[in-house]
Amino acid sequence: MNAPTAAAHLLPQIQLRDVPQALIDALQARFGAQCSLAQAVREQHGRDEGSLQAPPPSAVAFAESTQDVADAVKLASQYEVPVIPYGAGSSLEGHLLAVQGGISIDVSRMNRVLSINADDLTVTVQPGITRKQLNEAIKDTGLFFPIDPGADASIGGMCATRASGTNAVRYGTMRENVLALEVVTASGDIIRTGTRAKKSSAGYDLTRLMVGSEGTLGVITEVTVRLYPLPEAVSAAICSFPSIEAAVRTTIQIIQLGVPIARVELIDRHSVRMVNAHSKLTLREEPMLLMEFHGSPASVKEQAETVQDIASEFGGNAFEWASTPEERTRLWTARHNAYFAAVQSRPGCKAISTDTCVPISRLADCLLESVDEAEASGIPYFLVGHVGDGNFHFGYLLDPNIPEERVTAEALNHKLVARALSMGGTCTGEHGVGVHKMGFLLDEAGAGAVDMMRAIKRALDPKNILNPGKIFAL
Amino acid sequence: MNAPTAAAHLLPQIQLRDVPQALIDALQARFGAQCSLAQAVREQHGRDEGSLQAPPPSAVAFAESTQDVADAVKLASQYEVPVIPYGAGSSLEGHLLAVQGGISIDVSRMNRVLSINADDLTVTVQPGITRKQLNEAIKDTGLFFPIDPGADASIGGMCATRASGTNAVRYGTMRENVLALEVVTASGDIIRTGTRAKKSSAGYDLTRLMVGSEGTLGVITEVTVRLYPLPEAVSAAICSFPSIEAAVRTTIQIIQLGVPIARVELIDRHSVRMVNAHSKLTLREEPMLLMEFHGSPASVKEQAETVQDIASEFGGNAFEWASTPEERTRLWTARHNAYFAAVQSRPGCKAISTDTCVPISRLADCLLESVDEAEASGIPYFLVGHVGDGNFHFGYLLDPNIPEERVTAEALNHKLVARALSMGGTCTGEHGVGVHKMGFLLDEAGAGAVDMMRAIKRALDPKNILNPGKIFAL
Repeated sequence: MNAPTAAAHLLPQIQLRDVPQALIDALQARFGAQCSLAQAVREQHGRDEGSLQAPPPSAVAFAESTQDVADAVKLASQYEVPVIPYGAGSSLEGHLLAVQGGISIDVSRMNRVLSINADDLTVTVQPGITRKQLNEAIKDTGLFFPIDPGADASIGGMCATRASGTNAVRYGTMRENVLALEVVTASGDIIRTGTRAKKSSAGYDLTRLMVGSEGTLGVITEVTVRLYPLPEAVSAAICSFPSIEAAVRTTIQIIQLGVPIARVELIDRHSVRMVNAHSKLTLREEPMLLMEFHGSPASVKEQAETVQDIASEFGGNAFEWASTPEERTRLWTARHNAYFAAVQSRPGCKAISTDTCVPISRLADCLLESVDEAEASGIPYFLVGHVGDGNFHFGYLLDPNIPEERVTAEALNHKLVARALSMGGTCTGEHGVGVHKMGFLLDEAGAGAVDMMRAIKRALDPKNILNPGKIFAL
Repeated sequence: MNAPTAAAHLLPQIQLRDVPQALIDALQARFGAQCSLAQAVREQHGRDEGSLQAPPPSAVAFAESTQDVADAVKLASQYEVPVIPYGAGSSLEGHLLAVQGGISIDVSRMNRVLSINADDLTVTVQPGITRKQLNEAIKDTGLFFPIDPGADASIGGMCATRASGTNAVRYGTMRENVLALEVVTASGDIIRTGTRAKKSSAGYDLTRLMVGSEGTLGVITEVTVRLYPLPEAVSAAICSFPSIEAAVRTTIQIIQLGVPIARVELIDRHSVRMVNAHSKLTLREEPMLLMEFHGSPASVKEQAETVQDIASEFGGNAFEWASTPEERTRLWTARHNAYFAAVQSRPGCKAISTDTCVPISRLADCLLESVDEAEASGIPYFLVGHVGDGNFHFGYLLDPNIPEERVTAEALNHKLVARALSMGGTCTGEHGVGVHKMGFLLDEAGAGAVDMMRAIKRALDPKNILNPGKIFAL
């Protein structure tokens, strides 16, 4: 594994490519008011929720149709200028940074539901629709789209980063839930991948290749995802534990017993404190699990009983049930706001988040050693985790005026990733590689596999215009 | 869609490439007794369970290690000679045919379990192990590997064709259940894809790219798959229906209600008759559903009650329960032998099988129109289906002495595929493209997507030595 240095992980390789005025003129001619050169607009499109920075793109084209995207890409191809697709701007690893310059294609106006096929449990949408907009649009069908990365991300962006989140332990990730895509290729052509059939063996799995490709192989312009019947019964509960270890061992046993739990989130005492302050709650400031059960009334009851038995073995307190939808919403909103609650707890701070995921049997070892290191570092942090999947996030709250904190935090992340990889895990469970984890990807996948990724990239994007400088150096 | 002609679908494009004696000499020097030139061995490795034919490969190397595979591929690369990986030989679409000549790499001796990680519900195996061998090897762990394509296929081959089968309605296909691979690339290098973590966003999904690539992008030498806890309760039942439509509409409602049924197989009256004769059973010769329920005792009871209610609405007869493991095995063995039972029912016949899969809401329309056409054709046939996934197979039993029957059957298949595609479905739910469905893939995916597949193939296998002439013409 590469040695951790501030330079290696803090600063993306900025290598700006020329954006000819002729391209800007052509974009303005084609897109008129849909093309913005305003500084504020460009800056907004040149950053994400992460803490890395780069100069903004030279222009932003607001696409309103697949043809708009295709035309913007064709122009960019003609001038060999990078294009960076933009959805909701909620990625974390520098995915949206114009590290080689170029133009941003904002698809947030492409947010229509194109067809609801309730009888097939599928829906086809434009990429700019957010997950909340999608669930609002289908609320009368009795179905829902479960993937929930916390942020109200766009469905296109969730495809691009292979997002998951709290419900993945039961419903899978974007990998399992995207059936078909429409994609604009590097040459500006429009292709379709997959069908609405639930399974297929028809050639290479281009859908899965595009999911998680972070905008480097094509611009997603249409997405068909699976939906699920709203569960007949839902109940949520919190349970506090005497230690993180007790909470984690409870989780491991829940999973190993095959309980089909819908959500099982670890929230450490720091997070609880921050969430209490931010959301005006009075949760007990101890490590806790926030859980949700979906199913028939009998199944939910059975799951809850099993989980309560396991929790009490490990010293968990009696469950506190959130039985009404309002109480559930309040708890989950508090969970989803943990990141913002944390950032507010140290005014002016920048947060960086780890994202390792390990096989469930190694979760306790991986997590507990890392908690000890985090405590010893003295840097304010919080810990939350989709622990049923073996995925957890440390958030380090850095004072930008103390550069040493960033170096320390990156070193902690480096040790954590090394630990996770040695346990058969991954450097990123759900956030993606972006510019921040390129070194980690090499450590994880090995040079041969990354070379294979590069070969695919070169074959599909010979001019290297699609979100270049992400995932791997080319 | 291309017009159906006997030539297009009956005869693969045979374009034999030169296999220099120097390569044969080098293989014999490297592999000794592990390399066979015997006619019978070569012929066995040059065909699959489908009905297409081509000249056999020039040699068969029996690999016993990843290094054996890598060395064989390196030699083949040096002489630019095709290599065709061989597992159990149970594919159906001409996947194993040496349509461009070359050598076969038989991995059936690489059939060891490398590590069982019961606590993580994963197992890592060599590619030549069959699904039954795998389940035998893990039987003391309380876990099982659910993917069941009927044939006792090799796990490597099941990866290569993205196999699924009877349990996929609940447990997914190889797409959802392969976590990580070791692969020998076209240059003979060894790479790893994926990790044992349940989810990851670390770069391109090379695992999913390899799954379903039919040996054209690499030779799989190690596979990590997900396992599942053996269900606490299992019960199987059969239910006869007054019509195929009634059985299909029952299935559609089961799926739309979200019942987590583990298996729901349609067996038409022809199949029942053939199975009765072959397996000495006395099943009622009417369309029937063969179902299995997995879960806790309460959940299984609940599922069964829901399904019985639905079935009775559509005129289904009372369930006949197979409550002992022996009875269940007898029923499922009969189901799995349906293909052989059918072939035996017309001595000397060759079977060709269709494999369309459609969104569940279109299953009745797609299937019933095709049944009418099959009946009208006069060719003996049978119909079975993993109908919970919208996937079904017509098997046409052809007299090789009556070439017109093949033309008719291919024309029926052609109409069926066109119908499935028009309904948002796929030409192959689980068998793969091979040489037989290359035209259909083009119809389904479109020229742009197939060109993208070709570009990936050229990038990863510039000499076109990995199972060439499959999936698409290059």
